[in-house]
Amino acid sequence: MKITTTLKSIIFANALFGITSLGYAQQKQPSSITQGKYVQYVNPFIGTGAVDTNSLSGSNFPGATVPFGFVQLSPDTQDSPDNPASGYDYNDKTIVGFSHTHLSGTGVADLFDVLVMPTTGELKFTPGKANQPGSGYRSAYSHQHETARPGYYQVLLQDYNINAELTSTSHVGLHRYTFPKTANAHVIFDLDHSLDKKRSYWSCKIIGAEMRIVNDHTIEGYRILTGWARLRKVYFHAEFSKPFTNTTLASGRHLFPGLPIINGTDIKGAFDFNTEDGKPVLLKVALSPVSVENARLNLSSELPGWNFDEVVNQSSAQWEKELEKIKVEGTTEQKQIFYTGLYHAFTQPNNVADVNGDYQATDFTISNAPDKTHYSTFSLWDTFRAAHPLYTLIQPERTAGFVNSMLRQYDTYGYLPIWQLWGDENYCMIGNHAIPVIVDAALKGIPGFDLEKAYEAVKQSSLRDHPGSPFSIWEQYHYIPEDLQSQSVSITVEMAFDDWCVAQLAKKLGKTADYEHFIKRSEYYRNVFNPQNGFFQAKKKDGNWLEPFSPLQYGGNGGNPYTEGNAWQYLWYVPQNVPGLIELMGGKEGFVNKLDQFFTLRDKSGEVNGNASGFIGQYAHGNEPSHHVAYLYDYAGQPWKTQMYVAKVLNDLYNNSSSGYSGNEDCGQMSSWYIFSAMGFYPVNPDSQEYALGSPILKHAEMLTPGGKTFTVDVTNPGKKNCYIKSVKLNGKTLSKPFITQSDIINGGKLEFVMDDKPNKRWGIR
Amino acid sequence: MKITTTLKSIIFANALFGITSLGYAQQKQPSSITQGKYVQYVNPFIGTGAVDTNSLSGSNFPGATVPFGFVQLSPDTQDSPDNPASGYDYNDKTIVGFSHTHLSGTGVADLFDVLVMPTTGELKFTPGKANQPGSGYRSAYSHQHETARPGYYQVLLQDYNINAELTSTSHVGLHRYTFPKTANAHVIFDLDHSLDKKRSYWSCKIIGAEMRIVNDHTIEGYRILTGWARLRKVYFHAEFSKPFTNTTLASGRHLFPGLPIINGTDIKGAFDFNTEDGKPVLLKVALSPVSVENARLNLSSELPGWNFDEVVNQSSAQWEKELEKIKVEGTTEQKQIFYTGLYHAFTQPNNVADVNGDYQATDFTISNAPDKTHYSTFSLWDTFRAAHPLYTLIQPERTAGFVNSMLRQYDTYGYLPIWQLWGDENYCMIGNHAIPVIVDAALKGIPGFDLEKAYEAVKQSSLRDHPGSPFSIWEQYHYIPEDLQSQSVSITVEMAFDDWCVAQLAKKLGKTADYEHFIKRSEYYRNVFNPQNGFFQAKKKDGNWLEPFSPLQYGGNGGNPYTEGNAWQYLWYVPQNVPGLIELMGGKEGFVNKLDQFFTLRDKSGEVNGNASGFIGQYAHGNEPSHHVAYLYDYAGQPWKTQMYVAKVLNDLYNNSSSGYSGNEDCGQMSSWYIFSAMGFYPVNPDSQEYALGSPILKHAEMLTPGGKTFTVDVTNPGKKNCYIKSVKLNGKTLSKPFITQSDIINGGKLEFVMDDKPNKRWGIR
Repeated sequence: MKITTTLKSIIFANALFGITSLGYAQQKQPSSITQGKYVQYVNPFIGTGAVDTNSLSGSNFPGATVPFGFVQLSPDTQDSPDNPASGYDYNDKTIVGFSHTHLSGTGVADLFDVLVMPTTGELKFTPGKANQPGSGYRSAYSHQHETARPGYYQVLLQDYNINAELTSTSHVGLHRYTFPKTANAHVIFDLDHSLDKKRSYWSCKIIGAEMRIVNDHTIEGYRILTGWARLRKVYFHAEFSKPFTNTTLASGRHLFPGLPIINGTDIKGAFDFNTEDGKPVLLKVALSPVSVENARLNLSSELPGWNFDEVVNQSSAQWEKELEKIKVEGTTEQKQIFYTGLYHAFTQPNNVADVNGDYQATDFTISNAPDKTHYSTFSLWDTFRAAHPLYTLIQPERTAGFVNSMLRQYDTYGYLPIWQLWGDENYCMIGNHAIPVIVDAALKGIPGFDLEKAYEAVKQSSLRDHPGSPFSIWEQYHYIPEDLQSQSVSITVEMAFDDWCVAQLAKKLGKTADYEHFIKRSEYYRNVFNPQNGFFQAKKKDGNWLEPFSPLQYGGNGGNPYTEGNAWQYLWYVPQNVPGLIELMGGKEGFVNKLDQFFTLRDKSGEVNGNASGFIGQYAHGNEPSHHVAYLYDYAGQPWKTQMYVAKVLNDLYNNSSSGYSGNEDCGQMSSWYIFSAMGFYPVNPDSQEYALGSPILKHAEMLTPGGKTFTVDVTNPGKKNCYIKSVKLNGKTLSKPFITQSDIINGGKLEFVMDDKPNKRWGIR
Repeated sequence: MKITTTLKSIIFANALFGITSLGYAQQKQPSSITQGKYVQYVNPFIGTGAVDTNSLSGSNFPGATVPFGFVQLSPDTQDSPDNPASGYDYNDKTIVGFSHTHLSGTGVADLFDVLVMPTTGELKFTPGKANQPGSGYRSAYSHQHETARPGYYQVLLQDYNINAELTSTSHVGLHRYTFPKTANAHVIFDLDHSLDKKRSYWSCKIIGAEMRIVNDHTIEGYRILTGWARLRKVYFHAEFSKPFTNTTLASGRHLFPGLPIINGTDIKGAFDFNTEDGKPVLLKVALSPVSVENARLNLSSELPGWNFDEVVNQSSAQWEKELEKIKVEGTTEQKQIFYTGLYHAFTQPNNVADVNGDYQATDFTISNAPDKTHYSTFSLWDTFRAAHPLYTLIQPERTAGFVNSMLRQYDTYGYLPIWQLWGDENYCMIGNHAIPVIVDAALKGIPGFDLEKAYEAVKQSSLRDHPGSPFSIWEQYHYIPEDLQSQSVSITVEMAFDDWCVAQLAKKLGKTADYEHFIKRSEYYRNVFNPQNGFFQAKKKDGNWLEPFSPLQYGGNGGNPYTEGNAWQYLWYVPQNVPGLIELMGGKEGFVNKLDQFFTLRDKSGEVNGNASGFIGQYAHGNEPSHHVAYLYDYAGQPWKTQMYVAKVLNDLYNNSSSGYSGNEDCGQMSSWYIFSAMGFYPVNPDSQEYALGSPILKHAEMLTPGGKTFTVDVTNPGKKNCYIKSVKLNGKTLSKPFITQSDIINGGKLEFVMDDKPNKRWGIR
């Protein structure tokens, strides 16, 4: 999802680049750092920038994090970031500093806590203007002197000739700054650095901040703020590896040399060092959402020492352990895209609990998680489609953690998350797509959560009116009237899908009356289908169609029946009953004709907005509503067209450059589409236990499944031109339909594709 | 203090009124309620309204509270209150509801948590327009059908014919609503009711709110907001005495009948009752600043039952115990003013800890107070003058609690409170007047806090730069230059006094070097005395006087050298060295001449603003800078003029009406001036252990001192005309100087005044 309104289109990058250091002259790569077999393919720069100002960034960040980490330490090229939401734009020429928390791939900015920037010479307390080195403490940098790998980031700050290296544990950022020899080195802390405060719709405001000098090498403090997350309390404890020689705290424009503590809203601090001994200055910054005391505990538990390289190796080893859950063979670029995709998928949800389990609950109290984990950053409108199905397969323990964390919001808040950040609901986007996530985990038998409680939560979240989810209207009208609730068509079709999921869990638990109720609701999409024009069209509460209607007209996030898309893109969202959708369109022929139109109609007269990009006709891979559509030919007897379009997306709409995604990466969803599709299958209905086959581009893939068995995909004759399936065998037997099931995967086994450059139009006709 | 800019002057009320119920026809006073000997004189309506729109309200509230209570349940006549800051204006014609937290006597509004309003008939979810019954749920009311006593408030809501009665424990509000017989009774909860959100300088914003229906008679929820206090979390648990028949929750204009839980920012709820049985509906609402769980605990600990009258009696008994610490005899009006003054003085500081000791610390974490008390609402610029000296005498245990609570801010924040609300610093007003409070407690030997720690706190709070207190500038210039820090003259003279206090504690603890440092700083007021014009005048950093200068020109809270006053009013603030001030003015004759001018100069050409009121010449009793000035004649050989002006203030600038104070009551300071002065003495320098004698107006007063001894004041020939002291005896011996000491009081003893209608100009010449 995007939440942008100004960007017009997406142009793809050809600016490929390597991922190893390009030889920073003064500073060699740490010799003791080792690279894992799969970690080596991760390029954290993928998705960090668009090719030009008319394109969309993936909104990823290049900095250091462990899998699902709380601290995600990364350079910000923008002060008051807005777009890209990661704070880093590969096209920018200056770095403003390194902040400790980031969102990966979102359309809205937030976090950016505790910015740190090393400088030399004249002390400057303002960040300066974007891309203007010398205008403040920001520095010019060059991608030639910049490196990023899982758990490691390095850049040369050219204004100061400082080599900055970053790594992290789950709650602690570790910085290593190699200054030139000088008596005048500084490290700036900026507690005011945050999302754009002028964007009135989030009303970002620092409520209070403090910085305290504890001793000659330790500082502590906090900032409390309201922004996209309504209330965040960010406490920190920071230690330098050597004593500072002088300190200056600042509040706004007022400087206070030697002052030991300062409170305010625009709080900064400068810590001076003598680096004439030529040794680097190391800095550890531990965060906590609860207290300074917990930040201290997080530090002492995770990072008591000062061995930078060891921390990098530990982080890298953690990544290797996660990435090797799927072992693939293919071209180098395919492996780079694939493993960076896994890396992006595992960058969140973030464990926002301290090491002792304390976290800020949705009711703003401090709670304690018995398992020491509380996951947040749930971009569910995006991730329920393919990212969570991926987690269900290869992150089963964490999936239970995700479910339990979401159930905690139900406990305190009365319904499950829509979009949850830092434990707080922000109501971004539509639907209640925690429901498919939880139901999928339940149907697939993931252990570690209370099924009855999970059912209560999904049921109540489907009955209690809440913002964007007017269930009493749903029950009364059997559709969402646009004059009662905007984005009505998108909500209608997505709510029907969520209802289908509730029905499935009701059925599993033997709750027959509930099953009947929700399965009936799951067919309400039919009530906004206009047979006159063949589209889902908004109705008013009086039952009349909302006119005028154009299937090309785009909506954003309100004021229009369609959410970040148009009627063409929302025509396909009935994953719970594709045969029903086919029937609505007059059968398979009409359905396929409409799909053909969808993928070929180039008309953009409906004012494409920044929410759609990555076009193939009206198909827009850069945003989620289209993600399952190429697979729909499988259901209508023309799987070769699925193969053709899936291959086109895999080959044309992903690459290993900074503009490697065709839109925001969206917390793992854009990557997860690639991960599944590159292996040859995709969860069109994430709760169906069924995967549609597409066009595998990898030569080989091996997935370690929850039960410890291995599911293998082997592809004969892969290649860009050989995008068509000639034949498929599952466990040695010919597979004649373009679908496999969950049990085919988790029981282990082998899927063998033979590819060809000509469509086999007789294969896979269901 | 005021923080108003629009009000021009004050006109006093003669609209006296009784304090007993004026006979509400349908509802008798509860027969089981008993009245204490002293409680009967308290009239909570004093200070609740100004006579007309050009006057200042005392800003007191008439509702129910226990001494120093957290819940202070009172009617609000204004939605989005701003002025008066109590939310209740005696001149208003309608009541919008009863909210559970209030400030008493301040110039700035905040709190107003969890508004509750009973109604009948058509259900309305908006409060409606001020003084327009029928425009929303607000109701007309009449003072004829309104009663207020300590721990009890009653009003007839005329629009609905509902008799509403309120009482409270420390953390719980108890409502008793006697509805007419109807199937259509409602109780509205409004979580959006708060200070004026349009006043941009506080940026009041509801960050999040929730209301949850727990069962057929219980609701819970919270609201999190930023306002004058930067972050308040207000959780509640509420129980009705009978089941509701229907419920409707609301978010903004959207209504949700039957919905069990709602989240949002503008959250309301309506709970319907059938009252055809003629029985009243009771409601208990417990608050907590920490969690709903704590709110539940507060309720079960303090108010498990439903006996309304018993709670009223318990509250009344608590008040009686506090009020009887000073037993006075005088006219009924004098006793009403005196005991209402004590009542207002004991309305805060408020214990903001839950019954288990949990509270929100200044760093926004949750802490626990071992003694289960954490006091806040420290309006120190006002209260250090006389309210805290009063607490030191008759609230010694609570004084230790105040000191320990303030030291906790030092621990987390680095310096002591300036103005602390809900545990949070808001930097209102100038100076660091926690210092005189703590030092006074230390010098007077109040037990229960760590002296060394207290010294560290007052010392560091006098060294560390913080907003309004630029100590590095103070150390460099030996005055505050107006071009570096506004309000410079007021800060200079008040900072010098605070420094004198630090010096006294340093001396007591044998810290000689510190004593020398701070005693030197305590004389810096001299550096802004301009001998050319005889005033304290602002200097610039270049050492030149700030011109043009007019001693009549008023400042507010910034942009002018004087804080809420003019140069005339700030000429007198050297309580630590009155002889030094006399010397600056060329000796006693010049000093007395200037004082005479001060009390007689009627020129208002300097644009009097709303911060000054209660004038006698340039003396403005309605605000604190003048409060000690009438007593200064004592130091210059003309105590009869002190007597004359003190008597004039006592008799003319206090009365027992709603406009009984000549300005904001200011959290007990305006009252404490009366309490001391009516007994005949006043702490001109609150840290000096000395009291100046004035003009007692009470016939008799007995004060129970901390050691359990009794200090008695007896007055022969009191009366308005007999304002002059003829002679005084202390413990039977003639007293020839107009001063007594702390030890004279705490050792017990008797002070006997003989009054006369002619000045005795030979008595009391020091």
